[in-house]
Amino acid sequence: MECKDVGILAMDMYFPPTCVQQEALEAHDGVSKGKYTIGLGQDCMAFCSEVEDVISMSLTVVKSLLEKYNIDPKLIGRLEVGSETVIDKSKSIKTWLMQIFEESGNTDIEGVDSSNACYGGTAALLNCVNWVESKCWDGRYGLVVCTDSAVYADGPARPTGGAAAIAMLVGPNAPISFESKYRASHMAHVYDFYKPDLASEYPVVDGKLSQTCYLMALDSCYNQYCAKYEKLVGEKFSISDADYCVFHSPYNKLVQKSFARLYFNDFMRNCSSVDNDAKEKLQPFVNLTSEESYQSRDLEKGSQQLAKHLYDIKVQPSTLLPKQIGNMYTASLYAALASVIYNKHASLSGQRILMFSYGSGLTSTMFSFRLNEGQHPFSLAKIASVLDVTAKLESRHETSPQKFIETLKLMEHRYGAKDFETNKDTSLLPPGTFYLTKVDSMYRRFYEEKTADGTADGNKCSNGIANGH
Amino acid sequence: MECKDVGILAMDMYFPPTCVQQEALEAHDGVSKGKYTIGLGQDCMAFCSEVEDVISMSLTVVKSLLEKYNIDPKLIGRLEVGSETVIDKSKSIKTWLMQIFEESGNTDIEGVDSSNACYGGTAALLNCVNWVESKCWDGRYGLVVCTDSAVYADGPARPTGGAAAIAMLVGPNAPISFESKYRASHMAHVYDFYKPDLASEYPVVDGKLSQTCYLMALDSCYNQYCAKYEKLVGEKFSISDADYCVFHSPYNKLVQKSFARLYFNDFMRNCSSVDNDAKEKLQPFVNLTSEESYQSRDLEKGSQQLAKHLYDIKVQPSTLLPKQIGNMYTASLYAALASVIYNKHASLSGQRILMFSYGSGLTSTMFSFRLNEGQHPFSLAKIASVLDVTAKLESRHETSPQKFIETLKLMEHRYGAKDFETNKDTSLLPPGTFYLTKVDSMYRRFYEEKTADGTADGNKCSNGIANGH
Repeated sequence: MECKDVGILAMDMYFPPTCVQQEALEAHDGVSKGKYTIGLGQDCMAFCSEVEDVISMSLTVVKSLLEKYNIDPKLIGRLEVGSETVIDKSKSIKTWLMQIFEESGNTDIEGVDSSNACYGGTAALLNCVNWVESKCWDGRYGLVVCTDSAVYADGPARPTGGAAAIAMLVGPNAPISFESKYRASHMAHVYDFYKPDLASEYPVVDGKLSQTCYLMALDSCYNQYCAKYEKLVGEKFSISDADYCVFHSPYNKLVQKSFARLYFNDFMRNCSSVDNDAKEKLQPFVNLTSEESYQSRDLEKGSQQLAKHLYDIKVQPSTLLPKQIGNMYTASLYAALASVIYNKHASLSGQRILMFSYGSGLTSTMFSFRLNEGQHPFSLAKIASVLDVTAKLESRHETSPQKFIETLKLMEHRYGAKDFETNKDTSLLPPGTFYLTKVDSMYRRFYEEKTADGTADGNKCSNGIANGH
Repeated sequence: MECKDVGILAMDMYFPPTCVQQEALEAHDGVSKGKYTIGLGQDCMAFCSEVEDVISMSLTVVKSLLEKYNIDPKLIGRLEVGSETVIDKSKSIKTWLMQIFEESGNTDIEGVDSSNACYGGTAALLNCVNWVESKCWDGRYGLVVCTDSAVYADGPARPTGGAAAIAMLVGPNAPISFESKYRASHMAHVYDFYKPDLASEYPVVDGKLSQTCYLMALDSCYNQYCAKYEKLVGEKFSISDADYCVFHSPYNKLVQKSFARLYFNDFMRNCSSVDNDAKEKLQPFVNLTSEESYQSRDLEKGSQQLAKHLYDIKVQPSTLLPKQIGNMYTASLYAALASVIYNKHASLSGQRILMFSYGSGLTSTMFSFRLNEGQHPFSLAKIASVLDVTAKLESRHETSPQKFIETLKLMEHRYGAKDFETNKDTSLLPPGTFYLTKVDSMYRRFYEEKTADGTADGNKCSNGIANGH
């Protein structure tokens, strides 16, 4: 079995059709105009209505990917999930997804759930790639699912929510293949964002600390990535060597800061990616301690301005989905990647995409992809067409801030609850979408699939003979 | 970099010094004598006092392993944790462990937490092995930690608790190496044991269903394992080909049933591992449907009796720690493996150990190890000496059932709580043990290490500059 260019063969994405405009949220919250749209850099935010959750979204996206790329469920040898949205503290989301494979009789599918905040999807993806490259690989595909619903308590973090699920098929000869040798991680023990209040879906967040941790992790990963690259290739690495830089995107403003930070790193490393004019303008910051450099507003603003022309080329194409959907936690980075594929698929062949994954707590990795056109059905063009981003975004239903907040209130009561039925309102869901119908007195969750005619209920997700039904 | 015989190079184990005798628990609970000791097959149960938890146990075992095998923390390239004991729903246990590596400056350590009930440790171990065999491996060691505290609500499942942490160093040329090509998994969606009540540490358990699911998964994995073996080796596989059979051990009785079930499988597959006398005695069960076969008490009893002579040789050596400590969830299977290494290290060279990992929900895998003596410090003899099982078991402190129940009551209030200090009573803890001192008003957890003189407090686990301290 040939095993080169291991990476992402196919992608699909699902996000809820319900969303709220950040501008409307600003008005509702009585904050200054632009606080969310410019201050955070966000346009719109998707959220799960009472019939959707991370399990239903992942059922939807896995079934959709298998259908759209015409993959026999028997050909999946590994399936793993990255998520930080805990519905059950023991039973993995992966086990719910096994329902999709039940009919085919394929139960021999390795992998479980990986977890650390927004990083779990990257952990799952790296695990899956390693599996394909390992001696135990049996020639079948890996499938990675990132699924999250980001919701926040009333307060300044609330507009940084979002929700989505992304599925990625993994195997050799991929159009999006890993450059395995350069990847660099930075892992540390911090309390920047965490979920210790087990009864609540909301995290505890120290926004300022989290931003500093993110940038520190970015610096550490970038420096190690460059060192590994330089050791192997014998040439200096700079952002000039990356055609696109894709960042984990809790909100767009942090992505702008991150790219400027890489630019500042290149300046400090005396790279040719920074022109002489910029070098002169950054000179006043050369003696800052690294702690000072994270706090300097002048450096932040200055480097953003100087890097702006490169940001527009190398970063902006990745921001479409994260700006429109919001923070999707584990799915955020891959939604940003999907945005690049969707926007630029025709010109990506031979190019490099630099990726930065961050999960609070903290875990982070920088790695890179080499792109090639691929071959049907595993081509960049096919991925772009399956993603169908513009149409999906345009067909969404804009909800009022009031309705959004009512939904969050209801979900506060439903979180960890048993013995309730949902309203089963599927009117906004596209055909093929799974939705939650009820949670019984034993906390067991029941899902159904909306049929193609868009009205009647479709496939039930049975709980199987083993559940005593 | 050579990369053959990838597997477990070194092991260490920690379990709390506090335990309760099952016989005393029987008397306290007013149940019939033998209900726990013979009915469940358990001798004793370890539990965490208020100063210990899955984080402290994993800090203890990781530091201990690095010290006892003299491993430079810089040489760890991957660290991952399997656990189903959720203290935080976002921040991985792995990030707490990064404190141990902080001083060395090594932050480039991949891996996060894997989760699905008792299976997370196996997922972590397989991931780590795949990493070593992948193209991105950089020559450093992997480190896998299984850490769990199993506690149950008042009722019949309560005596099936336990607590422990196991650390395993992973790399090439290992004395305990994977036979990668035969491993077989069975994954499905069931509700046999799960933790949907997020505010409670206790699971929801359907004991009878879980036992059936376990045996069904065992059958499925064994049949697939045999098929893969036979396809590659060209010979029939039976339990005769395994020198030891090691099972996930929620309680010993299920292990007895499981081995008998493999024996029954061999009978149905007409293997020579089943002698003619046994074949005759099992004949009446040949036409049972598989569902009937799981429910038949006659088959269960009969096959156990017939397999007893093989159980004593192939299984009994693995039962030492699980019977003495109880269910350690993710650590249970590896505590059973550790028991074999401890009991039989001098005679294991060239032998095969068959492993069955099960996690409710459900995920399960059967795989096997080939053993060799290894080379210092990565030898079976060294592992046995580090494990030091007899001395560790004998130095435990037997607690009364009343005290055990009081501790569980206290922990019910502490679960997910903030703003409290523990009693900091370390009198029973061996030197080098980490323990919880307090949880502050922001839910941040503080640990210290008991020093070698056994009295004063030792290293603080700092929360680092990034936490704003």
